Amino acid sequence: TASSKRLASSDCSYEVCMKLFCFSGGKRDEELILPINSSLSVTLHQDQLKTTTTVATSRSFQEDRIWLNGKEEDITHPRLQSCLREIRRLARKRRNDGDPSLDLSHKVHICSVNNFPTAAGLASSAAGFACLVYTLARVFAVEGELSGIARQGSGSACRSMYGGFVQWIMGQKDDGKDSIAQQVEPETHWPELRILVLVASAERKPVGSTSGMQTSVQTSCLLKHRAESVVPGRMVEMIEALRRKDFAAFAELTMKDSNQFHATCLDTYPPIFYLNSVSQQVINLVHRYNRHYGETRVTYTFDAGPNAVIFILQQHVPEFVRVVQHFFPPETNGGQFIKGLPVKSASLSEELKRAIGLEPMPKGISYVISTKAGPGPRIVEDPAQHLLGSDGLPKETV
Amino acid sequence: TASSKRLASSDCSYEVCMKLFCFSGGKRDEELILPINSSLSVTLHQDQLKTTTTVATSRSFQEDRIWLNGKEEDITHPRLQSCLREIRRLARKRRNDGDPSLDLSHKVHICSVNNFPTAAGLASSAAGFACLVYTLARVFAVEGELSGIARQGSGSACRSMYGGFVQWIMGQKDDGKDSIAQQVEPETHWPELRILVLVASAERKPVGSTSGMQTSVQTSCLLKHRAESVVPGRMVEMIEALRRKDFAAFAELTMKDSNQFHATCLDTYPPIFYLNSVSQQVINLVHRYNRHYGETRVTYTFDAGPNAVIFILQQHVPEFVRVVQHFFPPETNGGQFIKGLPVKSASLSEELKRAIGLEPMPKGISYVISTKAGPGPRIVEDPAQHLLGSDGLPKETV
Repeated sequence: TASSKRLASSDCSYEVCMKLFCFSGGKRDEELILPINSSLSVTLHQDQLKTTTTVATSRSFQEDRIWLNGKEEDITHPRLQSCLREIRRLARKRRNDGDPSLDLSHKVHICSVNNFPTAAGLASSAAGFACLVYTLARVFAVEGELSGIARQGSGSACRSMYGGFVQWIMGQKDDGKDSIAQQVEPETHWPELRILVLVASAERKPVGSTSGMQTSVQTSCLLKHRAESVVPGRMVEMIEALRRKDFAAFAELTMKDSNQFHATCLDTYPPIFYLNSVSQQVINLVHRYNRHYGETRVTYTFDAGPNAVIFILQQHVPEFVRVVQHFFPPETNGGQFIKGLPVKSASLSEELKRAIGLEPMPKGISYVISTKAGPGPRIVEDPAQHLLGSDGLPKETV
Repeated sequence: TASSKRLASSDCSYEVCMKLFCFSGGKRDEELILPINSSLSVTLHQDQLKTTTTVATSRSFQEDRIWLNGKEEDITHPRLQSCLREIRRLARKRRNDGDPSLDLSHKVHICSVNNFPTAAGLASSAAGFACLVYTLARVFAVEGELSGIARQGSGSACRSMYGGFVQWIMGQKDDGKDSIAQQVEPETHWPELRILVLVASAERKPVGSTSGMQTSVQTSCLLKHRAESVVPGRMVEMIEALRRKDFAAFAELTMKDSNQFHATCLDTYPPIFYLNSVSQQVINLVHRYNRHYGETRVTYTFDAGPNAVIFILQQHVPEFVRVVQHFFPPETNGGQFIKGLPVKSASLSEELKRAIGLEPMPKGISYVISTKAGPGPRIVEDPAQHLLGSDGLPKETV
């Protein structure tokens, strides 16, 4: 019967936080995942980096199951259970309100894959949980505000529920009901803006940290000051800069805030290092490039890892990519250096090379993903793209 | 005549700041070198790292001259001129008060050498200016509080005017008269305390910074918070820990404060990196070593560079040095790995190696200088050790 089997798929992008405190470890409540300050991010385009998730429910399923990237995983993971429980609660509420078609005793099968290059070190949990919650909501015919549920899967997932530029409002309530995401501007707002993910070579991975970010809130006195006294003002400035597409203002705030985030990691006890020598070289390169032109043309931000995310206006992309290629000479037979949106070739002047004047760091960057802002989760209409077959199990190709 | 020729030499040690804000770039007054907060340091022993300075004055000298490490340098350097002017002012005051033996029209010759290993990247200006001011004061028969003058040569030099554990009290006055150093405890206070300078290989020098520390005061909002709200309390705690020789309390404060100092460097715009991958590895190694023993046996501090300064009680030195040697395998034919105070050999258990579990970083550390707290500037009595000959010029051997 129609009600006994439901299936939906959607894809959802990786999101990049602009480091106005996207510090998912900086939580005031670990269980509900409530942050200690608001934050801002941009959702990247699904054409380059995406997670695809299919959810099916059927009376024939014996238990809830999940497959991630082709491998069955433990469904009892607490964060996963939070999302399932919340969606089923809303579905029950809806049924009690008059939609009897849904049999809530049916189990779900979930299958999710991401197309992120392996070992890229890109965080996939934001896209993963956003996609999961969005697709579960389709299957259970749940509507309305869902970012608060995605948040309980992975903090940053709440922002990935929307496209373009998104803020996660920290909220004030103890139960977290007002800690939700909101779109600031859609992905069409700033079409000239390009995003480059500089994937740092795994060879130069950061030395292991002895501590997780949950200790930052307890041990860093700079973090508390930042959350209370710095971020609120910067959020207002950043949203203003975005609205008027003021690249220089946007770029400087982004760099300052990324650096301050990593400063609080270093102020954690024991300290946490996400930036390695490749990251430091990228930072210096960007500042010297901007200084050479006497204007802020490029900005960087770093999440919990050494990969730089670069924001840059379209017209400057070709030259900047050449600069990156010069100061991080790739392996000669290492495959494509630029992936994603095509980048025109450009020349590089001796003057600019001299102005930057850094020692090239061979193979420091494995490759660059060229992308832009994208929409929020999208329904996958093509049945061939569904990840679960008619038997409710992952298709062979997954 | 006796009054027409005077000569004095002294030696003075390198000092290591314990990073309770030894941030000489963090000045509230650049000209007078007034810091934005108080700080604490330990003066190292002259037997290992020292500067020796000879000052001579004679009616036959045509002009003030200075030789540093065998090379004549520009005497008109403003900081050098500040020290000369202040010492001559005090000498004039003294003569007006009744000592007519001094002819202040005589010019001075200054000769200074340091025995720091070349390319060690150890700051020599603290020892250099302390030694200069101390020796000038001898030649000009000036007595009394001299750290305020040394401060005007190089901020940290004021602390090197005393031995053992020294605080630089920031002071409140605009003219800086109350911004002076004070001994907290003499070098004999804690004889078990050992100091290891881990000299990071020049091969892995940090990538160039695009900005100097003077920008930190203007651009880092965390720095201001730190200076006003964090350091004052930590100074009190640190002095208490030192007084009662509480190694764990002393060690934890030292690590936290070093990390916070470097956090404010990262919060500077553009950011400043002093810690490189070797420094990060040392930090992780220390935390894992302490975690293995369930107590804080070792602490690190980093000044404006990648070299770690380790504080450790004598009984733990042999094993810890073995650990350093294991995780930073030295060049096989690279000369002595341990310089300075002798270190007994020790074994290294497989269990400890596994507990630390870091990837060894070959040649990351060039060598280790083993030393301890030392006295303040000392008069060099042996005429053979004076650096200027009877002609007032540097001896051949300098």
